[in-house]
Amino acid sequence: MSARALLAFGVLCAAPVLAQQAPSEIVARSTGEEWVAIAPSDLLVMELKPLVGKPRRVVIQLMPAPFSQGWVGNLRTLAAAHWWDGLSINRVQENYVVQWGDAASDDKKKAKALPAGLETVPASAYVVPVVAPLKGVLAIRDAYASQVGITPDGWPFASDGKSYWPVHCFGAVGVGRDFPPDTGSGAELYVVDGHAPRHLDRNLGVVGRVIEGQEHLSSLPRGTGALGFYEKAAERVGIVSIRLGTEVKALPAYEYLSPASPGFTAYVEARLNRKDPFFVTPAGGADLCNVPVPVRRVK
Amino acid sequence: MSARALLAFGVLCAAPVLAQQAPSEIVARSTGEEWVAIAPSDLLVMELKPLVGKPRRVVIQLMPAPFSQGWVGNLRTLAAAHWWDGLSINRVQENYVVQWGDAASDDKKKAKALPAGLETVPASAYVVPVVAPLKGVLAIRDAYASQVGITPDGWPFASDGKSYWPVHCFGAVGVGRDFPPDTGSGAELYVVDGHAPRHLDRNLGVVGRVIEGQEHLSSLPRGTGALGFYEKAAERVGIVSIRLGTEVKALPAYEYLSPASPGFTAYVEARLNRKDPFFVTPAGGADLCNVPVPVRRVK
Repeated sequence: MSARALLAFGVLCAAPVLAQQAPSEIVARSTGEEWVAIAPSDLLVMELKPLVGKPRRVVIQLMPAPFSQGWVGNLRTLAAAHWWDGLSINRVQENYVVQWGDAASDDKKKAKALPAGLETVPASAYVVPVVAPLKGVLAIRDAYASQVGITPDGWPFASDGKSYWPVHCFGAVGVGRDFPPDTGSGAELYVVDGHAPRHLDRNLGVVGRVIEGQEHLSSLPRGTGALGFYEKAAERVGIVSIRLGTEVKALPAYEYLSPASPGFTAYVEARLNRKDPFFVTPAGGADLCNVPVPVRRVK
Repeated sequence: MSARALLAFGVLCAAPVLAQQAPSEIVARSTGEEWVAIAPSDLLVMELKPLVGKPRRVVIQLMPAPFSQGWVGNLRTLAAAHWWDGLSINRVQENYVVQWGDAASDDKKKAKALPAGLETVPASAYVVPVVAPLKGVLAIRDAYASQVGITPDGWPFASDGKSYWPVHCFGAVGVGRDFPPDTGSGAELYVVDGHAPRHLDRNLGVVGRVIEGQEHLSSLPRGTGALGFYEKAAERVGIVSIRLGTEVKALPAYEYLSPASPGFTAYVEARLNRKDPFFVTPAGGADLCNVPVPVRRVK
């Protein structure tokens, strides 16, 4: 038995000539013009306190219109103000979320003042009305909505026909809030770090996704307090800075595989029906969060 | 804004009298007779090398009949032989699996000899024929199968009407294998540590689930080699021992919420329609892996 071949999915082994390619192979063989550049102005770059001297950078792509733009605007304001610098990761809950912000936000005397100009975003902003036939609807069943798909600019969505909304897949970044649904400014953020908690869709604002470095968050020690909050201040993980990509020197360029490209179509088909050599029985389907849009550094 | 109330789901705050309870509240208020004891003989207890003096124990519940019993028998044989003792966690792949076994299994000269009596399990064992109406089918849509549900003894399954099979949810433990589908003995195991990779259903043997301590695996540093394998021997995490529960002194008792109980019915309903105070829009559904069967230590 070869330990290294286990669950290999054709990455390490040459596929027989007639077998279908694995999704990762299809993505690797797509051509440069099938990819779309992500503007640095649409990135947030988080630098955590180094671990044993090694830097820990997490790169987040911000959600484009028509979704969540009130909160995304707040995130740009907070980043421009360097507001998160010196704050911390305060919560790591197994199979759920990693959350950061001001650990003292409960204490009016100690809470860090927010920058001017933050918008109060109403609960109605959790969804967007459908005004024209939705593009990118996928022929897959979903447990949470009557329709799901991927927008032309590469973001998964769900819909009930009247409205559509962004979804909580692994790596999705959302806006923490208190009980009234308009209480989240974006100062407190979380990233999904487990099985997609899709019941949060339409209940919390999804404002982006981690495109690099999520392992620096997901491998953190779990908090032992209620909901995975760290119980001691010393357990919190320091945030050195969060910056808009335009403020970061020598930032690598990133790109996503265009949903309009032939490579993307082949990739989705392969995700839904794994026929590469390892597989005995293709599923004949895949849930939306198991069809992540490929994102990579520009080569 | 209260950081501690964010994403609180009623755990920290008293729910208004008329609001529906959160799933966790329903589970907490179920009565003792709604729970079913898990026999110690159906547990595997893994002790990892302590981290900064702290023990790291992972408790796995073995899959009951009719699923995967050939491999489960092998796991009992391997545990009784103390075969895994001194081996290691060799692979930690982000949003996918953590895998352990003999890192030298590729090298016939260095590979650890397997105990006598291991069964070769055929690919046909990935599924079980349906011979009577399936119990526990849930009225939820699934992207991978025409039917899904939870067996009377508390295990999620999927079905195409002709056969049914166990599924890869977060925490599922499966049998690694090489390309021919009958090559997995159970010596090499993985646990799902991310969004449910349900495309693996019917392609790999599911033999159990982690019921306690998964955080000791999921918070490990990610491997930087292909497929998340650790590149250096020093990065591997040592396994002190894996024992059947019957061999472990002072093992806590565990139990699961019976699917036949009223508490379970209420729990499923609440998972499908979150109406506790935090929620604005209940989903009206949930995918199978977001309805995990409650398991706890006996109080």
